[in-house]
Amino acid sequence: MSTEFEVARLSTGDADFAQRLDALLAWESVSDARVQQSVDEIIAAVRQQGDVALLEYTRRFDRLGADSMAELTLESERLAEAFERIEPQQREALEVAARRVREYHQRQKPTSWQYTEADGTVLGQQVTPLDRVGIYVPGGKAAYPSSVLMNALPAHVAGVDEIIMVVPTPDGVVNELVLAAAHVAGVKRVFTLGGAQAVAALAYGTETVPRVDKIVGPGNIFVATAKRAVFGQVGIDMIAGPSEILVVSDGQTDPEWLAMDLFSQAEHDEDAQAIFISWDEAHLDAVQEAMERLLPTLEREPVARASIAARGALIACRDEAEALELVNRIAPEHLELSVAEPERLLPQVRHAGAIFMGRYTSEALGDYCAGPNHVLPTSGTARFSSPLGVYDFQKRSSIIHCTAASASELGKTASVLARGESLTAHARSAEYRIHD
Amino acid sequence: MSTEFEVARLSTGDADFAQRLDALLAWESVSDARVQQSVDEIIAAVRQQGDVALLEYTRRFDRLGADSMAELTLESERLAEAFERIEPQQREALEVAARRVREYHQRQKPTSWQYTEADGTVLGQQVTPLDRVGIYVPGGKAAYPSSVLMNALPAHVAGVDEIIMVVPTPDGVVNELVLAAAHVAGVKRVFTLGGAQAVAALAYGTETVPRVDKIVGPGNIFVATAKRAVFGQVGIDMIAGPSEILVVSDGQTDPEWLAMDLFSQAEHDEDAQAIFISWDEAHLDAVQEAMERLLPTLEREPVARASIAARGALIACRDEAEALELVNRIAPEHLELSVAEPERLLPQVRHAGAIFMGRYTSEALGDYCAGPNHVLPTSGTARFSSPLGVYDFQKRSSIIHCTAASASELGKTASVLARGESLTAHARSAEYRIHD
Repeated sequence: MSTEFEVARLSTGDADFAQRLDALLAWESVSDARVQQSVDEIIAAVRQQGDVALLEYTRRFDRLGADSMAELTLESERLAEAFERIEPQQREALEVAARRVREYHQRQKPTSWQYTEADGTVLGQQVTPLDRVGIYVPGGKAAYPSSVLMNALPAHVAGVDEIIMVVPTPDGVVNELVLAAAHVAGVKRVFTLGGAQAVAALAYGTETVPRVDKIVGPGNIFVATAKRAVFGQVGIDMIAGPSEILVVSDGQTDPEWLAMDLFSQAEHDEDAQAIFISWDEAHLDAVQEAMERLLPTLEREPVARASIAARGALIACRDEAEALELVNRIAPEHLELSVAEPERLLPQVRHAGAIFMGRYTSEALGDYCAGPNHVLPTSGTARFSSPLGVYDFQKRSSIIHCTAASASELGKTASVLARGESLTAHARSAEYRIHD
Repeated sequence: MSTEFEVARLSTGDADFAQRLDALLAWESVSDARVQQSVDEIIAAVRQQGDVALLEYTRRFDRLGADSMAELTLESERLAEAFERIEPQQREALEVAARRVREYHQRQKPTSWQYTEADGTVLGQQVTPLDRVGIYVPGGKAAYPSSVLMNALPAHVAGVDEIIMVVPTPDGVVNELVLAAAHVAGVKRVFTLGGAQAVAALAYGTETVPRVDKIVGPGNIFVATAKRAVFGQVGIDMIAGPSEILVVSDGQTDPEWLAMDLFSQAEHDEDAQAIFISWDEAHLDAVQEAMERLLPTLEREPVARASIAARGALIACRDEAEALELVNRIAPEHLELSVAEPERLLPQVRHAGAIFMGRYTSEALGDYCAGPNHVLPTSGTARFSSPLGVYDFQKRSSIIHCTAASASELGKTASVLARGESLTAHARSAEYRIHD
C-alpha cells in the first residue's frame, strides 16, 4: 500500500466533469452466480431441515460447534447481564443515545384517521405495528452497538411486540456492548446466528427461530443476497451500499474539522465515499492539506487512505447555487452544510438521507446520539427512499364504510367503470346495492 | 373444463384444518431460470443500445414495427384526445373516481416538521416528492383504466413533477379508456412499450425514455422479474401476487350479494382467491348454493369457476372471535366485514390491505371510486406492507442542527460510543467540537 496521499481534484468547469463525476459515483453491488447459488442452497436447506441446518452452517461458517439451538440463544436475562458488565461511562452513553433516538422517533409515529363525508360514507386509514421483526447485526469487526439502537428502537416505538435479533459470533466471540445495546433497545431474544442461514431462519421460521414479518439491518454480500431472495415472503429494508458523506463548505469552517468529518466516512471501509465541495479554491487547498497532514494520525489509516484514493474527491464549483445542483445530482446519504446560514439552503435540498446543518453539526453526532436514524439511503437512493423510521415498522389498512344510500350512489360509477373493463361480476356486485 | 361446481368446505374444528388452510393459502411466484436469463439479457441490451433495443424488442414481442421512438410516444395532446373520444358516461365516471381518489389521498400527505430542544438543537424531517415516476400499465385484456388512476393519482398528489407511463400495445391496438384515464390522472407522456424492456428503459433511461426514480404498477412474470432486478437502481412497489378477497359474514347479508362479491375476485384470473367465513352453517350452505346458481350467469364464468375450484373456500368457524383470528392469520388483500357492527371488530383487525365495512360496502366500490387505493398488499404481505399511497411517492430527509454548545455536549456521548466501536475518526470529528 502506497503512503503517498492521493485524492481526486475536480472542477465543475472541466470539460470532462460530468463523466468524471459519473465514474466517481458509479456503484453497483453484484452478487455473482457463485454467491447466488450458495445462498439459494442455504435457504432451501433451512426451509427443509430447520434447526439442524442452522447448527450445521454455524459450525461450518462461524467455527462454532453447538449441540442444540439453546446454546445459540441468548434470553433477555443475558442481555441485561451484558448491560451490567460494560463500563459505567458506556452504560450512560448508551442510555443518553437511546433516550434521544426514542424521543425523535416518537415524533414520526403516524396515527390512524377517519373522516365522514356529507352522505355518511366513512373513509380512513388504520395504522398498526408489525407483529414481529428480525434485526440482523453483523458480527466481527463491524458489530456496532449503535446500529442495534438505530434498528431496534424505531420498531420498539412503532409498537412491535417482539423484536428478535441475530448476530453471528464467529469462534464464539461475543460483543458485550452489542448485547448491552440490545437490552437498552427492547430486544426480546438474540440468536447467535449469521449469514444467509440467519436470514432464511427469520424469513421462514424453524423449530426454534420464530418467523418474522420484516428483516432489517446491514450485512455482507451473502446477507444482502439472501434478503433480496426472501423479499416478498417478508419485508426487508433497503439493501445498503457503502457509506458516503458529502460536505459543502463556504470556506469558513476549520479545515481540520472538515478533514476529520470526511475521514469519519472514509474509515468505515475501502469502498466508502467522502466528497468535499466548495466554491473557494484556497479553502479546497487547505482542506486537502489538512487531510494529508491528519491521515497518518488515524488509527484506521490504511482503510481511510484507500477509500480517499479510490472514491474520495474535492470538487471546486462556481458558487452556492451550483453546489446545490451537485447535492441533488449526488443525492448523498449524509450531507453536511458547513455554511453560515444552512436554513437558507435547506428548501433547495431535494435529495439527501440526513442533513447536518452548520459548522458544529458533525455527522458523527447523527451516527450516535442526535436522535434521527443513522440507517440512511446510500448510492443515490435518497432520490426515492428515506431514513429507517417508525413508518418502516407499521403498516396501514384502508377503511371504507358506505351507507345503503352512498353504496347505491357510488355503485353507479363503479358499474360504468367495471363494465368498461369487462369485469362484469365487479359491476353486478356493485349493482346489487343500487336502489333507485 | 368441468362445469360441476367445486369449492372447498373447511371447518376450524377439523383435525387437519391448519394444514388445509396453509395449503390453500400457499403461493410462491417463481421466476424460472429461463425467465431470469431472458430478463437479464433484455436489461443488458437496453442499457447498451437504448432506443435501438426498445424498437427491436417491441417489433419482436408486440409485433409492432416502428422506425423511431416518436412512433411509440404519445404526448399529452393525444391523451386529451382519447378523453374526448370515450362515452360521456365513461368520462363522467372517470372524473368522479379521480376526484374521490384525489380527495382521499390528499389526507395521506405527510408534512415536514421540526422541533427545537431546550439547548437550541433543531431536529426534524423534511418531506419531498420524487422527481420523476414511471407507471407500468399492462396491455391487452388486463389494461385497466382504474389502475392508471390508482397508480398515477397518488404520485400527482405527492407533487411528483413528471409522471411517465408505459403500456404495451400488442399489434398496435390502443385502449382509449386507458389513455383517457392517463389524461385525467396527470400523466405527462406515454410510451407504448411493455415487458422487461419497458422496465429497463425506465430504470436506466435511453435517448428517448427518461430515467425515473421509481417504477410502480403490475405486470406479468417478465415485468415482475425485471422490477426485482432493477430494485436499488430505482425504487419499486411490491411485487403483486394474485388478487384475493376474504368475506366474513354474520349470516344476515343476502347470500347472492356475497356470492357476487366472491366472484368479483374470482373473475380476475384462475389464481385469484376468494374465501368466505361464517359461524352460521346454514348461511354457509346458502352462500354456496347462491354461488352454484349464479356462476353460470357470469360473463367470465370459466375463469371464476377455475379460480373457485382451485383456490376458493367456504370456512365454518366457531364464532366471531375465531373469525377474527383467521382474518389475522390470512392477512387478506381485501376484507369484507359483512356484519351488523363492523366498527366493533375493526380494532381487532391487525392485518388487511383494505377493510370494507358492513353489508353495503362491496369490494367493487373500493376497486373503482370510493377513494382509497386499489393497489394493495397480496399473499399475506399485509402483515408488513401497506396500500399504495402518497407516501410511496415522497421521501424524507432527517435534519440535525446543533449549536456550538449542544454539539459540545452531544459530542461527549458520541465520542464514548465511537471509541467503543473503534471508529476513532468519528470520535475525533465529534471531539473537535467539544469545548469545556
